[in-house]
Amino acid sequence: MNQYWSDTVCRLDPYIPGEQPQNRQYIKLNTNENPYPPSPAVAQVIQNFDIGTLRLYPDPESKALKQALADHHQISSEQVFIGNGSDEVLAHAFQSFFKQSKPLLFPDISYSFYPAYCALYDIEYTKIELDSNFCIDLNAFNRNNGGIILPNPNAPTGIALALTEIKTLLENTRSVVVVDEAYVDFGADSADCLIDSYDNLLVVQTFSKSRSLAGLRLGYALGNANLIEALNRVKNSFNSYPVDHLASAAAIASIEDQAYFQQCNRQVIESREDLSTKLRTLGFLVYPSSSNFVFVKHSKKAAVDIYEALKQAGILVRYFKSPRINNCLRISVGTDNECNALVNALNSILSK
Amino acid sequence: MNQYWSDTVCRLDPYIPGEQPQNRQYIKLNTNENPYPPSPAVAQVIQNFDIGTLRLYPDPESKALKQALADHHQISSEQVFIGNGSDEVLAHAFQSFFKQSKPLLFPDISYSFYPAYCALYDIEYTKIELDSNFCIDLNAFNRNNGGIILPNPNAPTGIALALTEIKTLLENTRSVVVVDEAYVDFGADSADCLIDSYDNLLVVQTFSKSRSLAGLRLGYALGNANLIEALNRVKNSFNSYPVDHLASAAAIASIEDQAYFQQCNRQVIESREDLSTKLRTLGFLVYPSSSNFVFVKHSKKAAVDIYEALKQAGILVRYFKSPRINNCLRISVGTDNECNALVNALNSILSK
Repeated sequence: MNQYWSDTVCRLDPYIPGEQPQNRQYIKLNTNENPYPPSPAVAQVIQNFDIGTLRLYPDPESKALKQALADHHQISSEQVFIGNGSDEVLAHAFQSFFKQSKPLLFPDISYSFYPAYCALYDIEYTKIELDSNFCIDLNAFNRNNGGIILPNPNAPTGIALALTEIKTLLENTRSVVVVDEAYVDFGADSADCLIDSYDNLLVVQTFSKSRSLAGLRLGYALGNANLIEALNRVKNSFNSYPVDHLASAAAIASIEDQAYFQQCNRQVIESREDLSTKLRTLGFLVYPSSSNFVFVKHSKKAAVDIYEALKQAGILVRYFKSPRINNCLRISVGTDNECNALVNALNSILSK
Repeated sequence: MNQYWSDTVCRLDPYIPGEQPQNRQYIKLNTNENPYPPSPAVAQVIQNFDIGTLRLYPDPESKALKQALADHHQISSEQVFIGNGSDEVLAHAFQSFFKQSKPLLFPDISYSFYPAYCALYDIEYTKIELDSNFCIDLNAFNRNNGGIILPNPNAPTGIALALTEIKTLLENTRSVVVVDEAYVDFGADSADCLIDSYDNLLVVQTFSKSRSLAGLRLGYALGNANLIEALNRVKNSFNSYPVDHLASAAAIASIEDQAYFQQCNRQVIESREDLSTKLRTLGFLVYPSSSNFVFVKHSKKAAVDIYEALKQAGILVRYFKSPRINNCLRISVGTDNECNALVNALNSILSK
């Protein structure tokens, strides 16, 4: 009974996030959350927060957080846009830049939210095939387009492009290029240093992964002030105050604790390399990851069977039914204990 | 230099929120915030929150909060939608229901965000004039339309419709009717009891005013499960996790403290009536308010001059430049001390 729905609602194909079981009995390696808690400075700022001020609206422009991010990335605060998670920032970017007469381009294997945004805003798109090694072939993006978006490192493959390659892409592109850097802190190079040189570059980052704040919903974009103004115009026609007081205070505390940030990221990278070695020993092809997850394919056993068996064993990983990757698994890097539990479970599953 | 902007961005006319000075030196009576802090239960739940869990994404469906709201409104959780502030909920509702071949109807003097949403989603609209007493004339809505939205009580007038009038409107309307009840807890009757009878009714409420949680960004909609499904489809094509862990926990704590909620609302209503009497004595026409603000017009002095003089005196109220109301002021009800400071300042301004 859809008589009341707009045509938009009828054509949607919503994104399906990874399972978030509300009982905590699983080892959760399915949604690329950080295995470590946020900086202790975050706990301190929240526990000491003056709750009485929650009666007031937050600063609609999030000026203090913008300045902290600008300082961190060595840019100006007019080059920063902040939203309620990078998914919201991406949504605004799709509406701001990608509704064009020519199609948007993105990799065929990529963040599965992109086609959902296209349906939401009625944006035409063309998927560009990854090569046979699941790498992004940038030459294939050198065609007529109304915009380009790609994750770097790519998800769910974890494979990163070099900054020189991003630069070449920007040299060859006259439309807006969004580089979605959700996982960049785990070993890839950010394009944040290029925004002064390319006025069509928008870099999107998040506090959800490398800053362990998925539960507080914070994402941001960096780019030329003209691109940021477009995002602000959309945001101010949608929701004046997307970032709440507590999220803002926590984010600033997180940015200021640079030592903890680097230490956690180093630990995740070490665990990833260790896990990759062990998975190869178990007969997995492990794609070279620059992120906080590994993308793997077993030489003998079907991915869906491994996924189900792991779930039975209390371990959640991510399985995608999509073409080309329906025999792969994406596994988030957990603590060393969690990784060991995974390896032990796989050992038992694969030896059956 | 807008070469990168979509047509949408170019046509926008963003909403301008009331001033949020980041220094706290003003008496803020300009954005209808509650003068009282949130329930002590909110402080407790936030101070005792396990910050480590912020590394995890929140429940994308906010099941626990939905159930708390369903219980509070005596409906089922399939009839509840939750978002990052009622502004976000309204935005999704505009996209879900109001993009139709016939125009959306709303009062000419109303929440000034409505035309901004229409620009964002390219929705045609017709403004229906309030009568000469600034009351909504529901007969005038009895015309060809693709949807109706009205605040009850209306903003910025504060004047409420009776539930019987809302019912008559619903009887006469075949499109979706959104009743925006941001201020309903300060003396009007909610239409939440009508959602089982009218499958085209969506009731929108917020935690920002009567629950003193503007700083945490929480709003929600109540309606037939079919309308809620449309909102979920849009939300899941936009941002899977709009409500963060802390906001969700705080909201549940707030709902559970019914006694505090009622006590604060009673206090605001008492202060409003007292303030209204004093303002009338000072020569103001005070419209009959069922909200946490009063809408006033002075018999002699221009509203813009009073606004400026109050600002000089450290008191912020809201002045709108819009036609018909550009000689009125909207004044939020503060604590009794704040209201007295306002009355004293007005006394001095008006006697000059």
